[in-house]
Amino acid sequence: MKSTSGDSTTINIPESRNKTVAKGETPYVRIQAAHPMHDQKGGWKKGISIFDFILRLGATAAALGAAIAMGSSEQTLPFFTQFFQFQASYDDLPTFMFFVIGMGIVGAYLVLSLPFSIVTIVRPHAVAPRLLLLIFDTLALTLNTSCAASAAAIVYLAHNGNSDANWLAICQQFGDFCQQSSGAVVSAFVAVVIFVILILMSASALRKV
Amino acid sequence: MKSTSGDSTTINIPESRNKTVAKGETPYVRIQAAHPMHDQKGGWKKGISIFDFILRLGATAAALGAAIAMGSSEQTLPFFTQFFQFQASYDDLPTFMFFVIGMGIVGAYLVLSLPFSIVTIVRPHAVAPRLLLLIFDTLALTLNTSCAASAAAIVYLAHNGNSDANWLAICQQFGDFCQQSSGAVVSAFVAVVIFVILILMSASALRKV
Repeated sequence: MKSTSGDSTTINIPESRNKTVAKGETPYVRIQAAHPMHDQKGGWKKGISIFDFILRLGATAAALGAAIAMGSSEQTLPFFTQFFQFQASYDDLPTFMFFVIGMGIVGAYLVLSLPFSIVTIVRPHAVAPRLLLLIFDTLALTLNTSCAASAAAIVYLAHNGNSDANWLAICQQFGDFCQQSSGAVVSAFVAVVIFVILILMSASALRKV
Repeated sequence: MKSTSGDSTTINIPESRNKTVAKGETPYVRIQAAHPMHDQKGGWKKGISIFDFILRLGATAAALGAAIAMGSSEQTLPFFTQFFQFQASYDDLPTFMFFVIGMGIVGAYLVLSLPFSIVTIVRPHAVAPRLLLLIFDTLALTLNTSCAASAAAIVYLAHNGNSDANWLAICQQFGDFCQQSSGAVVSAFVAVVIFVILILMSASALRKV
């Protein structure tokens, strides 16, 4: 920026925006005028941050709950043959193992993301923590959705079977196991919905208004 | 900001920044200086928009390709009994039907989103079309990931079977069918990766710098 300096003897006639500053006055520019609007925007963003934190707590509960429910799903049938005991547990099915590990990772990420969410409450205008949360939320959403959807496909198969592929429904024998894994899948989908809301809120808070 | 004011006779020694504006001078501030940077930012956003459009074309191809590959997967075994002909097609498995419908919806959405992507190229600073794309991209990502992951779970089961649940691998008989559905799943995951990149790019273009 440059300012041209006039001589003290000549009289400059400013044509454009300089008219307001008369000769001999002390010119100063009020840049305070923007502040009330700025504060208002900050309040709105702070509200989003607080809501983000609460939703994040809910998602943490849903994700960890899903992982624990699936991880503890186990059922042993009360009858057994000489060679074999009928038992179902989550590690019989690779998809359910993927579910437990994936939802554990998502839950751990959510716990670790809570401090960053607090940072956005304290400093509503900071762009970096919000963008960081948005990036990792998107990745966690993908992992969470894969876990939930693949487990849902297997749970559906366990409930209904498939006559064309000659896969029998195992839920007739292992009712409790199926119930528990179905509950875990529902809980994982709750976490998916919360993640979508979190991402949309972060994006709307990031945009310049 | 510094302004040097040279009088021809006196030498001003500016102490604070207000002092530089001497009595009788015409002070004016160039606020034009911000404009080139603004344009530069616009160019950067325009680049992101163009890249967004190209990636969106790729995601459209991947999604529609996945839907068509899965939808046309069909195999009839060359031997048959008196009552039964061995045939496998995508509509034998509900998960594969969900895949075809879901990926069709995602592909249709991607085609419809192309004009909005062009709008962001023409007007790089417009917030509304970008935010709209981000919201629907997030929803489409969720649908796309569910389709891909649930079909992957079933394809894995078809390849490997599960001895604990007594589900046999059907890929030994229906090799071509499995190959084609596996290809469709891979293509769907390519679309998932592109969606994640699209969302992250939209978010970084939305943020105020």
